Amino acid sequence: MSVNVNTKWQGVFPAITTQMHKDGSIDIASTAAHAEILVQSGITGLICLGSLGENQPMTPAEKRLVVEAMVQVVNGRIPVLSGVAETSTAEAIRYMHDLEKLGADGAMLLPAMLYRADPDETMAHFRAVAKSTGLPIMVYNNPLSYANDITPAMFEKLADLKNLVAIKESSGDTRRITDLRNTVGDRYALFTGVDNLMLEASILGIDGWVAGSGIAFPSENQHLWELTRQGRWEEALAIYRWFTPLLHLDVHPKFIQYIKLMVQECKLGSEWVRAPRMILKGEERKRILKVIHDGIASRPKLVKKATKDRSDY
Amino acid sequence: MSVNVNTKWQGVFPAITTQMHKDGSIDIASTAAHAEILVQSGITGLICLGSLGENQPMTPAEKRLVVEAMVQVVNGRIPVLSGVAETSTAEAIRYMHDLEKLGADGAMLLPAMLYRADPDETMAHFRAVAKSTGLPIMVYNNPLSYANDITPAMFEKLADLKNLVAIKESSGDTRRITDLRNTVGDRYALFTGVDNLMLEASILGIDGWVAGSGIAFPSENQHLWELTRQGRWEEALAIYRWFTPLLHLDVHPKFIQYIKLMVQECKLGSEWVRAPRMILKGEERKRILKVIHDGIASRPKLVKKATKDRSDY
Amino acid sequence: MSVNVNTKWQGVFPAITTQMHKDGSIDIASTAAHAEILVQSGITGLICLGSLGENQPMTPAEKRLVVEAMVQVVNGRIPVLSGVAETSTAEAIRYMHDLEKLGADGAMLLPAMLYRADPDETMAHFRAVAKSTGLPIMVYNNPLSYANDITPAMFEKLADLKNLVAIKESSGDTRRITDLRNTVGDRYALFTGVDNLMLEASILGIDGWVAGSGIAFPSENQHLWELTRQGRWEEALAIYRWFTPLLHLDVHPKFIQYIKLMVQECKLGSEWVRAPRMILKGEERKRILKVIHDGIASRPKLVKKATKDRSDY
Amino acid sequence: MSVNVNTKWQGVFPAITTQMHKDGSIDIASTAAHAEILVQSGITGLICLGSLGENQPMTPAEKRLVVEAMVQVVNGRIPVLSGVAETSTAEAIRYMHDLEKLGADGAMLLPAMLYRADPDETMAHFRAVAKSTGLPIMVYNNPLSYANDITPAMFEKLADLKNLVAIKESSGDTRRITDLRNTVGDRYALFTGVDNLMLEASILGIDGWVAGSGIAFPSENQHLWELTRQGRWEEALAIYRWFTPLLHLDVHPKFIQYIKLMVQECKLGSEWVRAPRMILKGEERKRILKVIHDGIASRPKLVKKATKDRSDY
Repeated sequence: MSVNVNTKWQGVFPAITTQMHKDGSIDIASTAAHAEILVQSGITGLICLGSLGENQPMTPAEKRLVVEAMVQVVNGRIPVLSGVAETSTAEAIRYMHDLEKLGADGAMLLPAMLYRADPDETMAHFRAVAKSTGLPIMVYNNPLSYANDITPAMFEKLADLKNLVAIKESSGDTRRITDLRNTVGDRYALFTGVDNLMLEASILGIDGWVAGSGIAFPSENQHLWELTRQGRWEEALAIYRWFTPLLHLDVHPKFIQYIKLMVQECKLGSEWVRAPRMILKGEERKRILKVIHDGIASRPKLVKKATKDRSDY
Repeated sequence: MSVNVNTKWQGVFPAITTQMHKDGSIDIASTAAHAEILVQSGITGLICLGSLGENQPMTPAEKRLVVEAMVQVVNGRIPVLSGVAETSTAEAIRYMHDLEKLGADGAMLLPAMLYRADPDETMAHFRAVAKSTGLPIMVYNNPLSYANDITPAMFEKLADLKNLVAIKESSGDTRRITDLRNTVGDRYALFTGVDNLMLEASILGIDGWVAGSGIAFPSENQHLWELTRQGRWEEALAIYRWFTPLLHLDVHPKFIQYIKLMVQECKLGSEWVRAPRMILKGEERKRILKVIHDGIASRPKLVKKATKDRSDY
Repeated sequence: MSVNVNTKWQGVFPAITTQMHKDGSIDIASTAAHAEILVQSGITGLICLGSLGENQPMTPAEKRLVVEAMVQVVNGRIPVLSGVAETSTAEAIRYMHDLEKLGADGAMLLPAMLYRADPDETMAHFRAVAKSTGLPIMVYNNPLSYANDITPAMFEKLADLKNLVAIKESSGDTRRITDLRNTVGDRYALFTGVDNLMLEASILGIDGWVAGSGIAFPSENQHLWELTRQGRWEEALAIYRWFTPLLHLDVHPKFIQYIKLMVQECKLGSEWVRAPRMILKGEERKRILKVIHDGIASRPKLVKKATKDRSDY
Repeated sequence: MSVNVNTKWQGVFPAITTQMHKDGSIDIASTAAHAEILVQSGITGLICLGSLGENQPMTPAEKRLVVEAMVQVVNGRIPVLSGVAETSTAEAIRYMHDLEKLGADGAMLLPAMLYRADPDETMAHFRAVAKSTGLPIMVYNNPLSYANDITPAMFEKLADLKNLVAIKESSGDTRRITDLRNTVGDRYALFTGVDNLMLEASILGIDGWVAGSGIAFPSENQHLWELTRQGRWEEALAIYRWFTPLLHLDVHPKFIQYIKLMVQECKLGSEWVRAPRMILKGEERKRILKVIHDGIASRPKLVKKATKDRSDY
């Protein structure tokens, strides 16, 4: 498989949850149904098995099963990417090869889990994985959750790897976006991965958004994104202010439970998770439900949808 | 003195340095000359004795001297505020009274220094100081440097204090701006205090900017601000990207040395500081000088100045 | 399998490395040879597949292989424990069942990896795993590396689970030891897991030590431990001061590389690790080698070995 | 005044609170009465105007007043030191000169407040202050509260300054004690400044203890110290376990309120503090009072006091 150097990823690439039954086993049908709704909303890429997709507690076999199902339901309409969050470089390479076989369109690749590598080790990991595959790769930088920081200088050094086509920037620091633009220009498509920094990131010049909470509110999420594309900043700000309490739920150790509950309250799936995660209870459940229900109740009317001719994607 | 409840602070309020002689004694003439240049650049307020103004190492007498000089040079053209960074509530009140006598137009008030107060204590401090004076006050929130976080919920509780007219938000987290707008609406004028988050903050809806690095580049700084006021976001972004390496110098433990050196290289003052601060030396000096000189060399041409009728201030 | 409620773990339980070939594949023979040397040194338990044993980058099959080999070489002389560091409760339970089948004597159990659980979730994880097995368990608390803190109050609540027999305390805060003693008394055998806090921990009253750097210096390590058992504190302090630069190497993101290099320089194995980890190079290699060689050069003479009748273990 | 190079500070040097009236004004008589009780308990030095002595919210005049009173009441029986916590090197020097005039026996010197200096700046500060005076100085390292870390390597470089005679180590990391011993040997008298690490610190080899909570329990505090001097570790551990919940109160942002309340409940003074600090209220007050009253109720009987011939001090 040769690298498609013309890969142009942009727009909303939501990170979908892996829907489960009450016993923690995977519910492929529900996950596929949710994926279909997302595709209908106008997204331009779909990411399964990201952090939000409970990548880490899945077995190797389960991960392959989810990818297969997502490829099937999306059926070529938009690119399907899988998170790659393995504990060794060798396992990441093995996973990339399986993604190729399963027909995925790309990967969202993390550093090896559970090790605070030094910059040379981190770059060697990305280099080895990238060279092992023809698939295009979005490099996922999330030093807060995964201990490894991939700096602008490191992205500059990695620029010769043609299939590293995009960056998901989740450092939580929007300054990184300007630093990246000043260091690597437009070499990589730049996605923000932090929901509640999305508007800030947009004004700085980004190409896409790996959305989290938006999977429960796909129309509003897509609308917000398209307003930013069209420079309709005041309208975007109004929606963003409404959306922010919901977007905050994407940035918390329990973001999986929070967003799955949001998905459930929006009738797009269920809240079940796999242990050690437990569904919310008590005061926390009340508090989060209030945020969600307030959001639903004050949902903006999208009378004139900011639709855009999507033929250019 | 009654509270002027019509105080409308907005626009660029730079935090000026306190210029010094080589021996660390205060150079009032140079500080005043710099203030005059800033006033000429179109700023709408001036803040002396902020963190950047080396408030903390000054003696009580020196602080009064600086305020007096700033009031004199500005001469009523724009409001003059002084930082208030005392170690007890009683000293802060005493300082406020002296500000009134010296003719200052307002204060930028911090929590008491060197104590991580709990929320009730923090609010009691602001309440006591606010009640002791008729001067309008900008509340300065900088939990990273000063250990006390003044949350949106706390600002909501403080809203009955009419002379708390503005917030300087320096938490380093732009999410705070949206949270503040969602919690207290337009009750307070909202200033960002973090140079390298200024564009992000602007799109979220702010009223002003307590600028740091901009005191060395007053025209560019004012131009950038006015572009954001006019919604000329693409032009603003271009200048912001140029400016960012310089704005980064505002966010570092040595920001005083960095910005004073910047001021010196821009021929607007000198770099002298007071011990324990020392002027930069060795590799660090070279590195910072390179950032500054690169910035000067690539300075954007401001052929068409984004001037705005300032009569509305 | 019924729980052996009489399990009395105490003394030095080193965490052994998993020896590898240059290509990152497992070298069972070298690992077994090292285990034999450790058993000879007087240790009273052996832990394989801890963090130091590169548990996380191993495949499920490899982990079983290592356990099997360790059980075989130790051959019942002392208990053999395996680290359990899975990403879900279900996988941890599956692993426990395999440990039983493989003849391991116990487990060193971590919270599920890669999730900052809340206290209820953390306790539910330990409860579910403990109930699924008859094996005795050492609960491993390392909030710095694994994000979950198991507090004294939580250990109090877990006290009804009879096969939770020991705690490995690696919070990096010796105050925890006194808090644990004040909260749960002697309910759990208390092991320190932080090499360079070992003497401090000893004076506070501990039962054992999960040693790291000591696997390269088994005689000195055992001697130091036995001096503390005998209250020979001045002699212990002298050795501890010598040992500290080496023990520091156990507390660093690269502790695996550092300790494997130490093991190699002491002729007890080799330094090979699995990617993304890389062997040390450049200045860092020189610096660490100097610490190791200085330690070897100044090795204390153990003329009168502080041997103790070990029949009581 | 020439430096007394024979200064040998060792033993318990408690940090006394500055007693206040309800309105926050200083209560010299109560402070002196408390000092007298401490002297009677067997301490070998007294530190006024440390952090616990509310140094920072005091005016310059008040600080001089407190020092004068302490010198008078102690009357040469033991050395009286004052905390030095100024915001510039110049002010610290000025304060040292006043200490000399007031008859203080030494200083406990901090880096300049409110600035995270680099190592050269930190060392220049200590160098300048030390050279300006003949008084012996205890260098106070507390990077957690005061942002500046004085490392063993820095103490090695400062070793030529003969009047830097002692170190108060409050990094919260006992490893520092061994590192200091390995780096500077016995060049400095080594005091621990962290109450709830006191026993751990003792086994590592220290010369003194700047005690906090112990000012409310002077007999028990002195007894504990003397047990460690005599190597009576088991007895020391028993007292330490009893004492730990009280010693924990020394390590909290509200340690001043906690310890003043402890002093009050032990009938040795009152709890009044200066704003922005407020006395405890509500649930927090109940919780802290319970810790204090439990400590009082379970106070160990010191029938055979571990008195030691103190003529050697």
